[in-house]
Amino acid sequence: MNESIPDMMEALVLKQEGAPPAVERIPVPTPGPGEVLVRMAASPINPSDLANLVGGFGYERALPAVPGIEGSGKVVGAGPGLFGSYLVGKRVACARSPQHGGTWAEYMVTRAMNCMPLFKSVSLAQGAMLIVNPMTALAFFDILKRGRHAAFVNTAAASALGRMLVRLARARRVPIINIVRRSEQAAMLRSMGAEHVLVSTEAGFDEALRELCRRLRATLILDAITGEFTQVLVKAAPKRSTILLYSALSGQPSQVMPNTLWHDDKRIEGFYLSAWIARQSPLKILSLIIAVQRMSSAELHTEIRELVPLSAIQEALSLYQQDMAAGKLLLAIDPEQLAREQTMPRFQPAS
Amino acid sequence: MNESIPDMMEALVLKQEGAPPAVERIPVPTPGPGEVLVRMAASPINPSDLANLVGGFGYERALPAVPGIEGSGKVVGAGPGLFGSYLVGKRVACARSPQHGGTWAEYMVTRAMNCMPLFKSVSLAQGAMLIVNPMTALAFFDILKRGRHAAFVNTAAASALGRMLVRLARARRVPIINIVRRSEQAAMLRSMGAEHVLVSTEAGFDEALRELCRRLRATLILDAITGEFTQVLVKAAPKRSTILLYSALSGQPSQVMPNTLWHDDKRIEGFYLSAWIARQSPLKILSLIIAVQRMSSAELHTEIRELVPLSAIQEALSLYQQDMAAGKLLLAIDPEQLAREQTMPRFQPAS
Repeated sequence: MNESIPDMMEALVLKQEGAPPAVERIPVPTPGPGEVLVRMAASPINPSDLANLVGGFGYERALPAVPGIEGSGKVVGAGPGLFGSYLVGKRVACARSPQHGGTWAEYMVTRAMNCMPLFKSVSLAQGAMLIVNPMTALAFFDILKRGRHAAFVNTAAASALGRMLVRLARARRVPIINIVRRSEQAAMLRSMGAEHVLVSTEAGFDEALRELCRRLRATLILDAITGEFTQVLVKAAPKRSTILLYSALSGQPSQVMPNTLWHDDKRIEGFYLSAWIARQSPLKILSLIIAVQRMSSAELHTEIRELVPLSAIQEALSLYQQDMAAGKLLLAIDPEQLAREQTMPRFQPAS
Repeated sequence: MNESIPDMMEALVLKQEGAPPAVERIPVPTPGPGEVLVRMAASPINPSDLANLVGGFGYERALPAVPGIEGSGKVVGAGPGLFGSYLVGKRVACARSPQHGGTWAEYMVTRAMNCMPLFKSVSLAQGAMLIVNPMTALAFFDILKRGRHAAFVNTAAASALGRMLVRLARARRVPIINIVRRSEQAAMLRSMGAEHVLVSTEAGFDEALRELCRRLRATLILDAITGEFTQVLVKAAPKRSTILLYSALSGQPSQVMPNTLWHDDKRIEGFYLSAWIARQSPLKILSLIIAVQRMSSAELHTEIRELVPLSAIQEALSLYQQDMAAGKLLLAIDPEQLAREQTMPRFQPAS
């Protein structure tokens, strides 16, 4: 049963912040206690990967480093530990551990607890994107429910995560106000059935947002933009709102005038998936693992734009940055393993 | 018993933002339902008055306007209403109502509920400063207790409010980390018995603050500075800290890198006294009214630097701005009424 593990592997290696990572041959890592070795099949490019490549802004880490936050593959080895041994031979969705290299490599060592065995119904392609966005989407609904918020506001709403929230909100009959930057994005969300879509670059946006928030009692505001936009959101938010900073696409610190928090008991909090998961009970985590897989072909489905080989990372990154809402670019680390499961559009590098 | 009310009065009038207010003769206002007319005795210059004079930053209001947030005096008239009628003839501490002129005038109309009858033991001079700082100090201890925080951090700690917090913290055996800008201020606070004082302009401040916060589990951070300093505080704060923005002495919006909130479940909230009081029960407010008066000669005492006539406002404002921690400048609106109670250093304008 045990497959042979090579000594060396291909991996994307980031040597310098801001420069794109390049394919290198480096040693295959060895799993320690509580850890597993995953032969990677696929891994997406997420907005947080872009932030991680640029560095700074809280993404401090030693270089050189293998990037990549989440992916899918097969567990082919384990260090001492019960859960790790159980996983050997299984298809898994997996997230990197901070102390090891990331998912953009042929092999990755990570904590066994960072792996989720995949249902037969879930492909390795969809399985590669089951953690960051789907778990975040479910976490947001959990925060909504616990905080007794009647409705959401989401920003960067045309993103993969934004679309999941639109579908979940529809299924659960929770109003969501979707903020996008361009009218085509608004049209796309409306075609998915989104009822409330506002374009932030249009005249009268601030007033329209304030009015809609008030009417729907939207007191949970999800801010992926930060910078000066946080202030716009705080101003428009109804009394007793929570503004949750979950990404920083502007690359700028949030600007908050204290008086906008003073009068109406508003607060600003941060959301970071791994910290949120660490606060949940094991039973809750199990229910999340089941939920994301059950919904992976419906509410929590991710549109895949193209499959990309590791060697085309540079072109893939620029393509992704041009339009992050056009669907996910998925690194096909083991194209044959993926191809066995389904057919997918292949990446054609621009000549 | 009823004293005669003149038609006209002297008041400080702010005509243009940024320019100092000037003495003018304007009509004495008439109290409506639920309101009283107070013949003012004294009113302090507070940091929030300075912000109010400059305008912007949430201090929007129609001009011309009479400034002044709190003061003391005698109730000499009342519109329809039980509490207002009860107050007539009584010495009170009083706060302005947003829909009327402020305390820097010979007479002020305000809501009866914004007045607090003074104990005999409390002078009109101390009574003029019983609301803004003492109530805020007690509110901070209430927030500490309800949030189960083990210790405080305070900024601008040499201020009148900062000194109250130092004395209260000592009496209640709650650790407080006091942040000041100058070493003389640190020496002054230490001479009052403050145990933990850090000077923000000294080398190694960030690390010293982080270490002290961790050791004392200081998870309630009171930020009166904002601007880039908020980020310094957020970074130094332990897990699960609340950063409470209660003033904005830098005049700048708070800068917050989202990732500094993400990892450790920190949050930013605003504190605004009148909004906080509005959320308290009537019984709680009564207990606060009693507490601030009982403690007005001890923990909640305010050092008075000088008494100033309304006509010397311009010199008084520049004197105050030069060193806000040197003691309060108190506008003596009715010097004879104050003099009957006690003697106080008189203001000597620079030649």
